[in-house]
Amino acid sequence: MKNTFGSSVSVTVFGESHGAAIGAVLDGIAPGIPVDEDFIAHQMKLRQSVGVLSTARREADSVRIVSGVFGGRTTGTPITFIIENQDTRSKDYGELAYKARPGHADFSAQMKYHGFQDFRGGGHFSGRITAGIVAAGAVAISALRGKDIKIGTHILSCGGVYDRPFNDLNADTDRLSDMEFAVLDDDRAVKMQAAITAAKEDGDSVGGRLETAVTGVPAGVGEPWFDTLESVLAHALFSIPAVKGVEFGAGFAAADMLGSQCNDCFRNENNSVTAATNNNGGILGGITTGLPILFRTAVKPTPSIFKEQQTIDLNSLDNTTLQIKGRHDPAIVHRARVVADSVTALVLCDQLAMRFGTDWLKA
Amino acid sequence: MKNTFGSSVSVTVFGESHGAAIGAVLDGIAPGIPVDEDFIAHQMKLRQSVGVLSTARREADSVRIVSGVFGGRTTGTPITFIIENQDTRSKDYGELAYKARPGHADFSAQMKYHGFQDFRGGGHFSGRITAGIVAAGAVAISALRGKDIKIGTHILSCGGVYDRPFNDLNADTDRLSDMEFAVLDDDRAVKMQAAITAAKEDGDSVGGRLETAVTGVPAGVGEPWFDTLESVLAHALFSIPAVKGVEFGAGFAAADMLGSQCNDCFRNENNSVTAATNNNGGILGGITTGLPILFRTAVKPTPSIFKEQQTIDLNSLDNTTLQIKGRHDPAIVHRARVVADSVTALVLCDQLAMRFGTDWLKA
Amino acid sequence: MKNTFGSSVSVTVFGESHGAAIGAVLDGIAPGIPVDEDFIAHQMKLRQSVGVLSTARREADSVRIVSGVFGGRTTGTPITFIIENQDTRSKDYGELAYKARPGHADFSAQMKYHGFQDFRGGGHFSGRITAGIVAAGAVAISALRGKDIKIGTHILSCGGVYDRPFNDLNADTDRLSDMEFAVLDDDRAVKMQAAITAAKEDGDSVGGRLETAVTGVPAGVGEPWFDTLESVLAHALFSIPAVKGVEFGAGFAAADMLGSQCNDCFRNENNSVTAATNNNGGILGGITTGLPILFRTAVKPTPSIFKEQQTIDLNSLDNTTLQIKGRHDPAIVHRARVVADSVTALVLCDQLAMRFGTDWLKA
Amino acid sequence: MKNTFGSSVSVTVFGESHGAAIGAVLDGIAPGIPVDEDFIAHQMKLRQSVGVLSTARREADSVRIVSGVFGGRTTGTPITFIIENQDTRSKDYGELAYKARPGHADFSAQMKYHGFQDFRGGGHFSGRITAGIVAAGAVAISALRGKDIKIGTHILSCGGVYDRPFNDLNADTDRLSDMEFAVLDDDRAVKMQAAITAAKEDGDSVGGRLETAVTGVPAGVGEPWFDTLESVLAHALFSIPAVKGVEFGAGFAAADMLGSQCNDCFRNENNSVTAATNNNGGILGGITTGLPILFRTAVKPTPSIFKEQQTIDLNSLDNTTLQIKGRHDPAIVHRARVVADSVTALVLCDQLAMRFGTDWLKA
Repeated sequence: MKNTFGSSVSVTVFGESHGAAIGAVLDGIAPGIPVDEDFIAHQMKLRQSVGVLSTARREADSVRIVSGVFGGRTTGTPITFIIENQDTRSKDYGELAYKARPGHADFSAQMKYHGFQDFRGGGHFSGRITAGIVAAGAVAISALRGKDIKIGTHILSCGGVYDRPFNDLNADTDRLSDMEFAVLDDDRAVKMQAAITAAKEDGDSVGGRLETAVTGVPAGVGEPWFDTLESVLAHALFSIPAVKGVEFGAGFAAADMLGSQCNDCFRNENNSVTAATNNNGGILGGITTGLPILFRTAVKPTPSIFKEQQTIDLNSLDNTTLQIKGRHDPAIVHRARVVADSVTALVLCDQLAMRFGTDWLKA
Repeated sequence: MKNTFGSSVSVTVFGESHGAAIGAVLDGIAPGIPVDEDFIAHQMKLRQSVGVLSTARREADSVRIVSGVFGGRTTGTPITFIIENQDTRSKDYGELAYKARPGHADFSAQMKYHGFQDFRGGGHFSGRITAGIVAAGAVAISALRGKDIKIGTHILSCGGVYDRPFNDLNADTDRLSDMEFAVLDDDRAVKMQAAITAAKEDGDSVGGRLETAVTGVPAGVGEPWFDTLESVLAHALFSIPAVKGVEFGAGFAAADMLGSQCNDCFRNENNSVTAATNNNGGILGGITTGLPILFRTAVKPTPSIFKEQQTIDLNSLDNTTLQIKGRHDPAIVHRARVVADSVTALVLCDQLAMRFGTDWLKA
Repeated sequence: MKNTFGSSVSVTVFGESHGAAIGAVLDGIAPGIPVDEDFIAHQMKLRQSVGVLSTARREADSVRIVSGVFGGRTTGTPITFIIENQDTRSKDYGELAYKARPGHADFSAQMKYHGFQDFRGGGHFSGRITAGIVAAGAVAISALRGKDIKIGTHILSCGGVYDRPFNDLNADTDRLSDMEFAVLDDDRAVKMQAAITAAKEDGDSVGGRLETAVTGVPAGVGEPWFDTLESVLAHALFSIPAVKGVEFGAGFAAADMLGSQCNDCFRNENNSVTAATNNNGGILGGITTGLPILFRTAVKPTPSIFKEQQTIDLNSLDNTTLQIKGRHDPAIVHRARVVADSVTALVLCDQLAMRFGTDWLKA
Repeated sequence: MKNTFGSSVSVTVFGESHGAAIGAVLDGIAPGIPVDEDFIAHQMKLRQSVGVLSTARREADSVRIVSGVFGGRTTGTPITFIIENQDTRSKDYGELAYKARPGHADFSAQMKYHGFQDFRGGGHFSGRITAGIVAAGAVAISALRGKDIKIGTHILSCGGVYDRPFNDLNADTDRLSDMEFAVLDDDRAVKMQAAITAAKEDGDSVGGRLETAVTGVPAGVGEPWFDTLESVLAHALFSIPAVKGVEFGAGFAAADMLGSQCNDCFRNENNSVTAATNNNGGILGGITTGLPILFRTAVKPTPSIFKEQQTIDLNSLDNTTLQIKGRHDPAIVHRARVVADSVTALVLCDQLAMRFGTDWLKA
């Protein structure tokens, strides 16, 4: 479905970086959920990350809701979020119009759209399109909170610097949700930012890892085989630009474990089923066990760097070189954090609505 | 869609480990593709892995095709593969009937199906169900070969022992396809098997990593955002039991790279677009670049081990202990290899049919 | 999805008229629903209609369930129904192998499948494939009855002879369910059968209309716009071979009404919302009102007739003539009745599971 | 998918009658198709029908395209059409806020959305939402014309007055496309309009029938069983508000035919496969034969009438009466005509892209 995801609750994104507007349509979310425009604006701001790390002075993205909300609550019909692009004047894109930027979708888009794609600023492939996902995700996050389901993501690593692991999931996830640079250990955050600054000063960029925990999802959600919760979450997470890996629980490290180390042995503690380890990330056979859902996402370094790079001409396919100019973030992992929360919330709303019916998320 | 995957080309799986039969329905594959029953049997045998590592004496799974093939070729209508279960006599499952095996889907299935699920041998969650996927995948692999698209997977690691990396992709993938224990370096294979044997003797099990390369897929295949080729491949790969991680190109290692290291700089060599590195795994913006598609999959250790484990009673949820008996593989990564090839082939057939039309794969 | 229908509850059909076997996979139906093999056999018998009208001596279709049922109840995982074809010996199909039978799919299938389709007896386009739908539908009908939802279909007209209209819906639908020739007025049934016999004696065939009523579906089921309940039911009903029209409530007659005649004025009678008329067939804005769902389906006359017909050669496309031999039903509307009930039940199970959750139909 | 339809080419609608804006997102249409804003405006005007029959003075709906078009051509990424609502000031809706209008979705929406729906002017169920479909449909119609596929719909009947049948399909469809009141025989148009006026003067309304022909679709398009072209077209047509019946070819009249009358006997005329009759509407086995696709759609009379009607209070469910005021069209069949063309075009673009690939419609 290309730009639409989900079955009972679905989201559709549209727009190009330098087109008239971008946005999203969120369909199927239960009626009666309060829509808090301040919270949406807050999430948008986190995605933009207008703080110290980004020299680019950005105007705050303003989200206009044109349908699906009535009297401050969801109606149950499609909610449309429109974000006008501020800077759409035509300008000279110079060599970016015909040279494939390495690490970007320019060449693959050319092969798919035959030159008709809007190339400006990456067009439909721009990370800017995630703004619509974040707006829709904000409503999904609100709906889940009404059912005591909480999502928290921290920057597990950035530029090779690692954060401390999750500790008290409830306290950690609460705190992370409001952080622009979501790191659990402040000292590590300083070191990560130093790594970003160093890369930037060298005209280069860094990547990182996100780690996400979800608490409060009941056991018994997900499907066997082709719609395991891992399948569906991974599907959505790989939609985030620059994501190159997704792992659940122990993930790739599980490959080096013995079965006796990897198995999470169930325990009944105070009438609640739990386990001392969570190497399976709260999912067995594709279905939730009631333990926290836990996964990590790899984010590659920003492909826009200021060093001269070899590449090809999009039309002639001849070899050439490219020198990207202008302002670009030397890291995006901190901005991708709120996008990861958003797609996770959208997937869970969909799964819960399918499992328990379309009214289940109703406030 | 739970047990169905794909749009233009889709596969549906069914069955339980100890039910009457298991199988799959493959729909939408182009008409006219030769169906080689020997090749299907060969793939089935690779999945069963009746060699030295498996003490379990298994009878070869026999695949019966009851529809969709006429005169030795696909008709274009659903192909149904049925594999009768050999051993379905009722027996005493003892404590396995009511105790949740750690690392298995017993508990999550109980929460979803309320005790109505067929618990015997894991029921519908058994790895045995992959036999249907392998049968359908064999037809998909044949169809792709007709278009010079080749898939090769090796055991990148097992029990902590690593294989050599891919070298000459064409030679490597050709060779791997026929190997029961698909490792590129024979010495490493011996060491991996030693690790498996050691775990087995200790009543334990080991996991591993698979690495897959696909050559010959044209540039321009895949979709932006919610149906990136990474999204769709990861969706299918996480359907394979025991898979806990999927990464493309450099994957999680990309998170530690600088942009200048991670970007694959395009080069025109002999009128073919390529690059010296393939950190993006042949996919940018979710769409193929024409470089080989490259990904790795993490397989956790077999959850069935012979050490006593703590767990809960499925009905009372009381704490208890469990001692699994019988015969179980101390590793499954070598058997999962052909399953990874199969789901990859099914995803690619679907993507290619959507991109170029339902007749494109026709012989 | 070609041969798969439904989202939360889905059915996949497979098989060819003269292949090894036909059947269906029913996925997503709630766990715990009793599966009554006698009822399935009963429904199969109604579809076969081995009574006075069909000279063809048919062996009863025997349905084998190979998955998804455990201890006599649904497990919640895919239920596979397999019906072996009795007569699959190769024989000389003569001119049927290369001449397009008018009214059949021979020519359109040739254009789609390029000659690779199994032509014998219509292959995958044979009405015989509905046997799988009826088997799956029997489980769906049982599930709905557990929630007091009843479906009844009568032959509204056949060969130009009309049945009396529905009168007491509960009594009528109960009675219809067991009838092989489901007509409310016995005298009309005799006249219809006389029309069929007359056509048969002339080497010709007749068509008819089915009228279906569903009681007990709660208000608030269905979706606006692209998944109106009318859209989804019509989609499924047009899947039945020979159906050329579907109408809800007053249907085409509504086009000739005034608004003041067509509007169903709501009334509260004994704390139940109802109306004196049901011109909208229980659906407004695509969503149920709680009034009975009411629709009619047009079934064209059996295309296999014994008169010589003009047609073309499938390979050369040259003009030629065709003389069909053998045994064919001079009417199928009475056999299509149980198929209409079945697809209706499958659609409703899907809609109800999406609306109220996957456990709602659980016994 | 509720408000989204289609697979390879899909459309999503959003908005409420008196919300901020309505619109649609068209995804998957091939890149490079010219987007003619004048033609879109023309189609919008036909839908609004601001001519003699509608006393309501409407401002022309202005369509703003905010994504997916670059340099006057489709990019291949989602095209978003936004139509601002002109009159969204709050006003006193009086009894319409809490009384169920007969024939409208007020009551069924209340049962689904629990009072959170935007009730103003029918909210999301308003016929106004079809404006988004018409905008998207205009691009689809343009794309099809580029492949010589033409769609023509006439008002077959209105208020009991019938138009002449199709005669020369090419000439007829060309002429119909530009007509605001699309009737082939001008004298019948006058009589239909007299019937509308008579109903209007009596505070009542009339319904009608639409008949659509599509020429130029190649043979071999469509799928067996659950995605027959009839299934998919009917699915989309029943999404149009007020449609209560859909029939293909001879439709319900086929139920009264003999097989020898109903079968369309193939003939090769000048190397083209055709038939003297088209009782199957160009579709056999769900797949096109290459003959014109032919179907009819029943449109019920406008439910908004000015006579006092019985109904219930939406909150208390008590019996009450309702008197609708203001301006409402006494007929909508002539306005529904362009909507029928639009959904037909969207369905065909989707089917053709699935069959022949996503580039097939490219100019």
